[in-house]
Amino acid sequence: MRTPDRNPGWLSDDDLADARRRLPMLYVEAVPVRLDGQGRVTDVGLLLRVGASGGIARTIVSGRVMHGETLRDALDRHLEKDLGPMAFPQLPPCPTPFHVAEYLPIPGDGMYHDDRQHAVSLVFIVPVTGTCEPRQDALELTWLSPDQAASELVTSEMEGGRGALVRTALAHLGALR
Amino acid sequence: MRTPDRNPGWLSDDDLADARRRLPMLYVEAVPVRLDGQGRVTDVGLLLRVGASGGIARTIVSGRVMHGETLRDALDRHLEKDLGPMAFPQLPPCPTPFHVAEYLPIPGDGMYHDDRQHAVSLVFIVPVTGTCEPRQDALELTWLSPDQAASELVTSEMEGGRGALVRTALAHLGALR
Amino acid sequence: MRTPDRNPGWLSDDDLADARRRLPMLYVEAVPVRLDGQGRVTDVGLLLRVGASGGIARTIVSGRVMHGETLRDALDRHLEKDLGPMAFPQLPPCPTPFHVAEYLPIPGDGMYHDDRQHAVSLVFIVPVTGTCEPRQDALELTWLSPDQAASELVTSEMEGGRGALVRTALAHLGALR
Amino acid sequence: MRTPDRNPGWLSDDDLADARRRLPMLYVEAVPVRLDGQGRVTDVGLLLRVGASGGIARTIVSGRVMHGETLRDALDRHLEKDLGPMAFPQLPPCPTPFHVAEYLPIPGDGMYHDDRQHAVSLVFIVPVTGTCEPRQDALELTWLSPDQAASELVTSEMEGGRGALVRTALAHLGALR
Repeated sequence: MRTPDRNPGWLSDDDLADARRRLPMLYVEAVPVRLDGQGRVTDVGLLLRVGASGGIARTIVSGRVMHGETLRDALDRHLEKDLGPMAFPQLPPCPTPFHVAEYLPIPGDGMYHDDRQHAVSLVFIVPVTGTCEPRQDALELTWLSPDQAASELVTSEMEGGRGALVRTALAHLGALR
Repeated sequence: MRTPDRNPGWLSDDDLADARRRLPMLYVEAVPVRLDGQGRVTDVGLLLRVGASGGIARTIVSGRVMHGETLRDALDRHLEKDLGPMAFPQLPPCPTPFHVAEYLPIPGDGMYHDDRQHAVSLVFIVPVTGTCEPRQDALELTWLSPDQAASELVTSEMEGGRGALVRTALAHLGALR
Repeated sequence: MRTPDRNPGWLSDDDLADARRRLPMLYVEAVPVRLDGQGRVTDVGLLLRVGASGGIARTIVSGRVMHGETLRDALDRHLEKDLGPMAFPQLPPCPTPFHVAEYLPIPGDGMYHDDRQHAVSLVFIVPVTGTCEPRQDALELTWLSPDQAASELVTSEMEGGRGALVRTALAHLGALR
Repeated sequence: MRTPDRNPGWLSDDDLADARRRLPMLYVEAVPVRLDGQGRVTDVGLLLRVGASGGIARTIVSGRVMHGETLRDALDRHLEKDLGPMAFPQLPPCPTPFHVAEYLPIPGDGMYHDDRQHAVSLVFIVPVTGTCEPRQDALELTWLSPDQAASELVTSEMEGGRGALVRTALAHLGALR
């Protein structure tokens, strides 16, 4: 992390790889949902993404918080990156996450894991009112009913143990059977 | 409560007065807010109402839950009653209130009081995107900045101790200084 | 509800049956848990009870809030009634329930149901540090691991749809897989 | 961050200073409270500490999360460091913080600030049942009533804007007037 540069918050790939071995990395994540007129969840949006190992896995909106960036700005940035500019997400009025996911590099050492790093993720539920056009490495966004999203079939396909996170989101919404 | 009628959930004034002396009454309440594009609260909406004693007091959206009515339906109904049909409130995706206010008939016996009854109120924060036209006994809706709404001047004008409730709502929104 | 009596909050069986057809009844419920030294849930306590239909069903601590009674007092009273005087429950510092369960008399009309009434229940998680000796109509308290408590086998045995409530409690505790 | 060492999570002072300019640092904080038998907060514990500028300031339990350390472990470690080994804190059953405090290095840029770094802090309320003996740079722990702790006099003495955090904690406990 000694490379001189003008924006000290910018990290080279080497610096970032280094930091990942030395510090917990702060993430924000979002579970996209569609609501009916009374606020009840009707659909949960899951992304299909090409995973680190080359296989296809399901995931949610996810990304790192940068130095000097507020959580709301980070959430906004990653929602646009993963869902496109026409998703019209409703950012949460309450800045406290409904869940904190701790991703540890050692498998089996907790609910969630991430081979590359120790990441701590503040997870939010974000209603989406527009049209999602996944970009970058996200291939597709699939809308599932709450019961489908919570099913063993779907949760077992999710990256890093995030199936538990989707079920926890549905519980928070009063929609987990 | 023995009056025969077709809809057993309907209560005459006498029956209701009776019930209020015998059972805790279930209420829903809502603090209307306006948000900026990132979900930050910019304004809090307080109602002016002619109080029981004839004076004018500030309050929030408030009303009883009927037999057989879901909390979402009750919230929806009272938002429309107090804010008019063009308020376009966003009902909360999470059905758990951010706060429960216990109104006891004996003053000084708690944070909140109500001379008429023992009421237990599930309180929600509701973003409003349209135009509010207070109806019935609500005279006016005033939009205040978070700092104004939390000020001693404003909170001391609120009915039944609801100043504490407005401060608690702002704390929940990360906007209480 | 016109019977003259000294304590107007007392209801005869007839009055209570009447009220149940006319008003939503306010309940408090508690999911008893055991924690390890770091606050992680190790066990969930479920009661075995003889149900209305004569069969045995699993349930949690549950009871009505009386007129003039605070939620904390009601929770305390029902914990002692259902778990005995040596359970040493830790009442929650935060008075907001983690979940609100709406029991409607019409089956299939929601997540939870109760043939007798429309009940709205504020549900809390209560760590228990002593010895539980179920009393009255509760036959036994069984301690289950979080995974057992969330299993289909156990949740399907629970009264009124409370299996969803137990899963929601585990999600809130970060312990739902 | 290139110093070779056996424990990659260990950071030299230089490395840490570097990281603080490049990445948001993850913290846990705790508001110590005393409760009565029904879970109501009776006292809030504030630390007196010699601040960076040499003056004495009030603060709460606070510290960095290390690489590979769970949030519960970090909370436990900092509670022992700041309150001593006989405090007997009750770690929260729910791993979600009641509040997230974003400390930005630029004063006036938000609710909280920290000259040294961009820190994101997950804040918990922790009931304490034993005897606190502050250690290291904490001089003293003072127990204040909820009304005293929320007063302008006390909150204005708190480091980094944490007066807002104490009021938010009291709101969460249903004890902010």
